[in-house]
Amino acid sequence: MSDIHSDLYEKLVSSERIFEGKVINLRRDTVILPNDQTATREVVEHPGAVAVVPVTKEGNIILVRQFRHPVGQILLEVPAGKLDPGEPPENCALRELAEETGFTSNKLRHLTSMYTTPGFSNEIIHVYLAEDLVESDKQPDEDEFIHTEVFTPKQIKELITTGELCDSKSLVALCLAGI
Amino acid sequence: MSDIHSDLYEKLVSSERIFEGKVINLRRDTVILPNDQTATREVVEHPGAVAVVPVTKEGNIILVRQFRHPVGQILLEVPAGKLDPGEPPENCALRELAEETGFTSNKLRHLTSMYTTPGFSNEIIHVYLAEDLVESDKQPDEDEFIHTEVFTPKQIKELITTGELCDSKSLVALCLAGI
Repeated sequence: MSDIHSDLYEKLVSSERIFEGKVINLRRDTVILPNDQTATREVVEHPGAVAVVPVTKEGNIILVRQFRHPVGQILLEVPAGKLDPGEPPENCALRELAEETGFTSNKLRHLTSMYTTPGFSNEIIHVYLAEDLVESDKQPDEDEFIHTEVFTPKQIKELITTGELCDSKSLVALCLAGI
Repeated sequence: MSDIHSDLYEKLVSSERIFEGKVINLRRDTVILPNDQTATREVVEHPGAVAVVPVTKEGNIILVRQFRHPVGQILLEVPAGKLDPGEPPENCALRELAEETGFTSNKLRHLTSMYTTPGFSNEIIHVYLAEDLVESDKQPDEDEFIHTEVFTPKQIKELITTGELCDSKSLVALCLAGI
């Protein structure tokens, strides 16, 4: 990082554990701001995740619908899931792809890695394009409670324009995949 | 929502307040899954936010650099900020634009509204394109600790390709703005 931004840094003073959960943890940090004042920062700790854009040989895209309790809605998303402890993101991408769609990919390409909510969480999502799909031994889990659907690129564009596709990781993944 | 997805819904059983913070709250809900089993869901409550793509009359884009404590890095992002209680998103967009860049916009267009992390939070971000920029009475806050920088569309594409621009709301906003 270049020195010209050195006046932006905050300095950690102390950290308080608030909650240890199944998916996330929460802590409250105290920091010193660039103007030497003190502030608190609430930080949601997340294990990180992957998102995958699966493209069929016809050039169509497989999406999943699932109920998202925090927003109380069924959302349309690219296949995605959390990293297991120590799991390489690429392995996780292939695992989640198989679990959610029943396919694996012979051509997986990293598109980007991004922070979803850097204001209050450390969650990072590694985004992949998955082509050359072949049926996987591992079929979708019985208890995943998702529906898969195949869309043409034109349909994807419409879903984005109308706002029906409103999950940020999916929007980034589809944009960067050039859909 | 169409009936064919009715087998995806979860049903709330109970809700436990864990934490009430300055920016976020945390609760833990118990739900009944579609297979009648019980599960817990950790939910980070967030007030919602806006993100704005400010385009100058030359067709360049104003971004902000700021330190993000949860990820321990200075990130390059589009101007953005949280909704005040009851604040219309469009007002918030113009307020944050002025506070962070010193400009207001005579041509604000809604691009989309999206969920940043629907797996664990209800945060929604309303995304705007801001054109016809004029100097605002309200200049950047002294204690915002941000640097603004102007980039050409070509430079933005490079920042996305290299991964230097790695904030998901900014990636969505710039993609949907057609940058």
